[in-house]
Amino acid sequence: MKARKLGRGVAIVGVGMSQFGAFPGKTTRDLFAEAFLEMRDAVDKGLDPNDIEALFIGNYSSELFEGQGHTAPIMADWVGLMPRPATRIEDACASSGVALRQGVMAVASGLHDVVMVGGIEKMSDLPIAEVTDTLAKAADVLYEIPAGFTFPGFYAAMATAYMHRYGASPEALMRVALKNHDNGALNPKAQFNQTIAEVMASKRRSAEKKGLPVPEWADEMAFLRDDRANPVIAWPLRLFDCSPVTDGATAVLLVAADIAKQFTDDPVYIIGTGQASDTALHGRSNLTSIASAKAASQMAYQMAGITPADVKIAEVHDCFTIAEILASEDLGFFVPGTGHEAAEEGLTARHGPKPINTSGGLKAKGHPVGASGAGQAVEIFKQMRGQAGPRQVDREVDLALTHNVGGTGQTAVVHIYERK
Amino acid sequence: MKARKLGRGVAIVGVGMSQFGAFPGKTTRDLFAEAFLEMRDAVDKGLDPNDIEALFIGNYSSELFEGQGHTAPIMADWVGLMPRPATRIEDACASSGVALRQGVMAVASGLHDVVMVGGIEKMSDLPIAEVTDTLAKAADVLYEIPAGFTFPGFYAAMATAYMHRYGASPEALMRVALKNHDNGALNPKAQFNQTIAEVMASKRRSAEKKGLPVPEWADEMAFLRDDRANPVIAWPLRLFDCSPVTDGATAVLLVAADIAKQFTDDPVYIIGTGQASDTALHGRSNLTSIASAKAASQMAYQMAGITPADVKIAEVHDCFTIAEILASEDLGFFVPGTGHEAAEEGLTARHGPKPINTSGGLKAKGHPVGASGAGQAVEIFKQMRGQAGPRQVDREVDLALTHNVGGTGQTAVVHIYERK
Repeated sequence: MKARKLGRGVAIVGVGMSQFGAFPGKTTRDLFAEAFLEMRDAVDKGLDPNDIEALFIGNYSSELFEGQGHTAPIMADWVGLMPRPATRIEDACASSGVALRQGVMAVASGLHDVVMVGGIEKMSDLPIAEVTDTLAKAADVLYEIPAGFTFPGFYAAMATAYMHRYGASPEALMRVALKNHDNGALNPKAQFNQTIAEVMASKRRSAEKKGLPVPEWADEMAFLRDDRANPVIAWPLRLFDCSPVTDGATAVLLVAADIAKQFTDDPVYIIGTGQASDTALHGRSNLTSIASAKAASQMAYQMAGITPADVKIAEVHDCFTIAEILASEDLGFFVPGTGHEAAEEGLTARHGPKPINTSGGLKAKGHPVGASGAGQAVEIFKQMRGQAGPRQVDREVDLALTHNVGGTGQTAVVHIYERK
Repeated sequence: MKARKLGRGVAIVGVGMSQFGAFPGKTTRDLFAEAFLEMRDAVDKGLDPNDIEALFIGNYSSELFEGQGHTAPIMADWVGLMPRPATRIEDACASSGVALRQGVMAVASGLHDVVMVGGIEKMSDLPIAEVTDTLAKAADVLYEIPAGFTFPGFYAAMATAYMHRYGASPEALMRVALKNHDNGALNPKAQFNQTIAEVMASKRRSAEKKGLPVPEWADEMAFLRDDRANPVIAWPLRLFDCSPVTDGATAVLLVAADIAKQFTDDPVYIIGTGQASDTALHGRSNLTSIASAKAASQMAYQMAGITPADVKIAEVHDCFTIAEILASEDLGFFVPGTGHEAAEEGLTARHGPKPINTSGGLKAKGHPVGASGAGQAVEIFKQMRGQAGPRQVDREVDLALTHNVGGTGQTAVVHIYERK
């Protein structure tokens, strides 16, 4: 595909997100309002919400999760933005990454100067078996689901293929979980803001309280290898290899680059965007790489005029730990087959040479599927501007990347960010 | 809102649509392929499908209608367009009108030169009560549906408010049905391609065959007033005031204006686009007009630099007959309160001064909800280029309009087309 340039520059000038977790009393509307209000109040020079001209809202399936279709104008109405156009974007778990791309196009097209990109998902109201079924509809329901697959199974198939091909061990996957929990522990919005060591301590305390035998583990890896503490979901994926069921909403304010300074002296520019598709997993010859992620990132790199080595931090789509390892290769950070070693050596840790998922990732921060893509941009905006608090990386970040995947990679969308 | 110009001109160079109707053996994939292949083969100077760079697909609820989410990349894969980015747009029955707007932005942004806009919906597999429930999710499920409303009820409320305020009669609504069936009878793709007179004749034949008393009606209006032939669904709306449950797909090929002549010597340019939202019906003070449709059309008129009087033909969202009358006023074709007279006087007939819904409209052509918006553009493209066969209007059409509504008007999207 041809390299493209945007007709007009685009910048992020404010972000917001709700608490991530399971909130039985809250609807999508409540979560969206939380994210919207935080975004509104976070714009350095202030935002008059009336200046927002359009909304692009990523949502996987409000109709299945809470019985509400046509959800975009309802969100816009809920926060007082009538009669702004409000559009729902759906590409499974890539919904709000793709919504971000629509927002970029809307500004670059000249049609809008100020748009809001949102992401929403309220998953915890359904019984867990129905959540699994609902998510499974993001696969191919004619050719895959009748064979008994659900998403842990799909990613387990990728993990076993990867392990077989490159000699990787389940321990490499566990290292991803360890790291992302370490980061999530420093993110007050995360669903799981505990390190694995803290999880172990809390399990011991709870056993003690109940008068049960108190489990002892030599270290975190011993805990993660323990079939009772960390049961197998779909081998080699265990509980701590899987992202959780999450309620949450995210918000990103995009403006034309030429007016960005009206909102903040420190905007973050989106200088590359790429999106690609792939056939569903059943039709692929290679399970150790997600072709759409490769294609999307190549588009984004070309547009931005940078290489993978230029990227200082990245938020990648770790719906399962194996997905982060595949991403680290598909994005060109590591040579194919070496991503697992990079994870084991700590190269992707918060203060390593290539920090990945400083937010805690989908794994620890939580994965409200339609909200996750825009949520990645929230973290990047904060890190680039030095506002990530205790999880702030220890260097200047001039270039960053987000990578958001739908399904098993039928959709992938990548954005590249620059701080000048 | 400010008047806007696109950063880059956009043209339609090819269109396609599947047969509209109820097709028990077909999936969305089959319908989409039908529309895609017709579009591919309809491009005057030929189309290499590999030149398509992205897909924007309007779909209301493939997940509820046929259990398939993440449907956009599946459609793209089905017609061999991997790894093109494929994005699903959902704004209820305005989904593919809004998808058309996303396609316009994608080209105007400079990100793409050639994009396909599609619309899909496969509604007839569910039992009819579930279809009604599925559509009802496009209303407000917290505040409206628990009160017992479904869509015929919403539009009946608008119809009674309109009749009360302006002294309109149910006969004005019947005139809309008569006209749209007259047009649909000349559209070989229409679900109902019979005039009301033909419907009457077929009912008489069928009674005769069964040895039942053969009904006699003085004329079409007598037929439409007959409670047994045309039962009340939600007063004043009767069966023939309602659009049907339809399976169908539509396709529109958009390209940058500067390369349009590579595809055809006779492109149709999109010179105006507008989209707006409104609160759900329960929160409105006025039921005799859809504010979002007014706002969206004003945006589109401003962008195009034309007035309602300049529009030669229009496809409007007649999900119910009252909706066409409201649209004819909201779009500025007729003064508020006079749309019903215009309908009764035949001003919107195919050879009247302001032809509306020459395709048969959603009423007779059919209403596969997520496909209807792009379907309107299909008709406009054909009419503007003189390719509408026996239903071709009797004058040159240099300017035309489409008007697509989601729900009761929580979304409305309007496009304006020019043939040079």
